[in-house]
Amino acid sequence: MGSVKPMILKSQVEWGIHCCVLLAGLPPERYLATKDLAEFHGLPKEYLSKALQSLSQAKIVESVLGPTGGYRLAKAADEITFLDVVEAIEGRKSTFNCTEIRQNNPCRLADYCDSKPCGIASIMWQADEAWREKLRSVRLSDVIEQYVAETPVDLLERSTEWVLERT
Amino acid sequence: MGSVKPMILKSQVEWGIHCCVLLAGLPPERYLATKDLAEFHGLPKEYLSKALQSLSQAKIVESVLGPTGGYRLAKAADEITFLDVVEAIEGRKSTFNCTEIRQNNPCRLADYCDSKPCGIASIMWQADEAWREKLRSVRLSDVIEQYVAETPVDLLERSTEWVLERT
Repeated sequence: MGSVKPMILKSQVEWGIHCCVLLAGLPPERYLATKDLAEFHGLPKEYLSKALQSLSQAKIVESVLGPTGGYRLAKAADEITFLDVVEAIEGRKSTFNCTEIRQNNPCRLADYCDSKPCGIASIMWQADEAWREKLRSVRLSDVIEQYVAETPVDLLERSTEWVLERT
Repeated sequence: MGSVKPMILKSQVEWGIHCCVLLAGLPPERYLATKDLAEFHGLPKEYLSKALQSLSQAKIVESVLGPTGGYRLAKAADEITFLDVVEAIEGRKSTFNCTEIRQNNPCRLADYCDSKPCGIASIMWQADEAWREKLRSVRLSDVIEQYVAETPVDLLERSTEWVLERT
């Protein structure tokens, strides 16, 4: 069982964060089209489009239709956390779903009622929250700062030019 | 996208932890059969059987064949963490799979090589590790202690009797 289909985030989470990072570099009032976001990251346009719609519903990006339309961030990069993007794509449900199997214990009396949530579920939910807490603590602006510091200036310049030609 | 199929752990994780907690109460050299573990928790025997096999492969439980056979813990309850059970069922792969889409940037020169792992992947891996760290910090014995403290004595006694009659 272990090696078959482990719990894993959708690729759209990776795509969504990379797209937001790129969009963070746009000048005010400029938009980048889905096809350009797809080309820059080497992604299938149709699937990326769904991820961008989820980000739009979550008000992380905003879109404009038409020939010069496309997407831009709906707020500043320091107001968007990794958790915002992850939850826009994956939802806010805990990774642990408690089905209350303790209630199936055949030794319970019919009127028995649990006084507290199951201790096992509590731990699993705390672990889920530890994951979210880390994602909540990092803003897009943090990784952008690091990316700019670590990337050669000429690559940054060419990328900026590539994007600006398309906005 | 958000509400459809969020990332979620297999039910077998929940089942596995509950079964280990029950097995922790067995006297030495006694085993509980899959059908009894299934009945106690109200679970489908065939699927539970697969989860128990995963726990066995991970050396968390050990099994004996035959009419008095079944499962027991392979080590003490304070030597088994939540993470041990989760990884036995789900594997050890990170919940984030980096597909290195930064390498698709059309502005990169052919010989460009990244000096560091992608900053986005690093954060996602750190969040996964925060989740695992919490799971690693809790032992089965911790929840058993809490369960015993919170459960009415008569229910504990009936459950123990139910189990012992079947070992």
